[in-house]
Amino acid sequence: MHVFISHICLQCLGKLAYYFVSKTKLSEEEKIRATAHLYRKIAELFEGDLSNYMEICANFYLEVFKVTGEEDLFAEEKKLSNEIAFKLLDLAKQHAETLSGAIKVAAVGNALDFGTGVYEVSLEDFKKEFSELVSREFAINDYSVFVEDLKKSQNILYVLDNAGEAVFDLVLVEKLKEYVDEVIVAARDKPVQNDVTAKEALELGFRKIAKVISTGSRVPGIYLKTCSSEFIEILKNSDLVVLKGQGNYQSIDEIKKVRSKPTYAILRAKCPPVAKALGVKYGDFVFKKLI
Amino acid sequence: MHVFISHICLQCLGKLAYYFVSKTKLSEEEKIRATAHLYRKIAELFEGDLSNYMEICANFYLEVFKVTGEEDLFAEEKKLSNEIAFKLLDLAKQHAETLSGAIKVAAVGNALDFGTGVYEVSLEDFKKEFSELVSREFAINDYSVFVEDLKKSQNILYVLDNAGEAVFDLVLVEKLKEYVDEVIVAARDKPVQNDVTAKEALELGFRKIAKVISTGSRVPGIYLKTCSSEFIEILKNSDLVVLKGQGNYQSIDEIKKVRSKPTYAILRAKCPPVAKALGVKYGDFVFKKLI
Repeated sequence: MHVFISHICLQCLGKLAYYFVSKTKLSEEEKIRATAHLYRKIAELFEGDLSNYMEICANFYLEVFKVTGEEDLFAEEKKLSNEIAFKLLDLAKQHAETLSGAIKVAAVGNALDFGTGVYEVSLEDFKKEFSELVSREFAINDYSVFVEDLKKSQNILYVLDNAGEAVFDLVLVEKLKEYVDEVIVAARDKPVQNDVTAKEALELGFRKIAKVISTGSRVPGIYLKTCSSEFIEILKNSDLVVLKGQGNYQSIDEIKKVRSKPTYAILRAKCPPVAKALGVKYGDFVFKKLI
Repeated sequence: MHVFISHICLQCLGKLAYYFVSKTKLSEEEKIRATAHLYRKIAELFEGDLSNYMEICANFYLEVFKVTGEEDLFAEEKKLSNEIAFKLLDLAKQHAETLSGAIKVAAVGNALDFGTGVYEVSLEDFKKEFSELVSREFAINDYSVFVEDLKKSQNILYVLDNAGEAVFDLVLVEKLKEYVDEVIVAARDKPVQNDVTAKEALELGFRKIAKVISTGSRVPGIYLKTCSSEFIEILKNSDLVVLKGQGNYQSIDEIKKVRSKPTYAILRAKCPPVAKALGVKYGDFVFKKLI
């Protein structure tokens, strides 16, 4: 049984199924049938082989898209998330004058999960939260080895996670560019939840500072069967890879299938199985060398 | 499609499945398989006939008990709920000097859902909440017709809901006894969630003021196929029936199969489909004549 898998995953995916279906324009009865269909899928996945977390996760999302279609159901949330993040950008830059500061800012971006209905909180509250979070220490901090790996690298692949959060990644990518010739930024190919897509990343400002590519996939993480060969080549060959957020971190088994060079994760542990796998507390910040 | 059924029911039952399984002593892998089994059951139920809410609800719980067994998984919550409620009893009695006051006190009992991990709240906070809630008006209040029906009644069947809440029902049952010869109090036959059982109701003090019977069933509500013939006879023949809480209210179609005499529900609308069915707002208090 994979270390990322717990029975809480069923509750989490069940809630996501409900959340996705709620956002569609289906009739109430169609929503019931669609949610039931997704519950059956979740049951099937967790009755089967429990050794590959990303396979379960990817297959769940692929089924969600069969039911909900191509539409960007979280467009509004993503737009608002970006707006809020841009309002915090000056403050973020103050904390990101050093490389370690910029890494922390990117990590806090993963903490401020704007995509979960917190819009009633004022910008002042967000500022306070940002300032508090950015002052916290990482529970795991592989910064010193990272600096060594960075010195040996000419190029970096940086894999984005959520909208909003991506604005803070802009700050870190800009800082990383002082150390290497090229940073390639990768994001989801099509809309999935509040994840930023490659197209949206270009619009956010990555256009000016990095080559932006799509993973070729709509899965919130890296599941090779769904990725483009271009992305897999870059994933394999980049001198250094930085993975943002839980979904990308939880793809580590997939990544190891093609990659043996230095790979780091920046994230906040937002669920009990991930916190347990990392040996940290729920809510802790982590900057960890994975390969 | 039954008016009580919405796609939010799947999210609610999925959460309950997770919650029940979490409380067992199963290994992590067994918990995953048990939760998956219950998710499959939920899917099956909502892929099928959607015309009978109680049938879906009852079949879900019967499957939960197959997986979790006979144990009283919520014993601790129920004990604490009763302790907290007894501490508020004097205050409750102050508000229950009139019959209408006692009905409101019983309704507020349904609001203070002690079984959902709110124990960190202080007794002072509970007192404040109680006083605030007891001062609210019912969104539907059939009190005047109730008084008319009460005058014509010699006996009442009063169907209990949760532990904790049942302490406030004690106050109302005592008041009702001033108007009729006999009040029969019914409760679940075996432990299910934070619902009070007939045995527990006896221990709470109903022993002194009423005849206490079991529904014969472990379903949180009334599903005739699982009820004893003794209970069904009393349900059919009582001059007046008072149903506490959502589960009992949502059993109205079952009750109508055997009963045509005055039947009332006292509850707080705690889920969107129930609020919609009643034409009230989520969170509203209701005292409604159903038959």
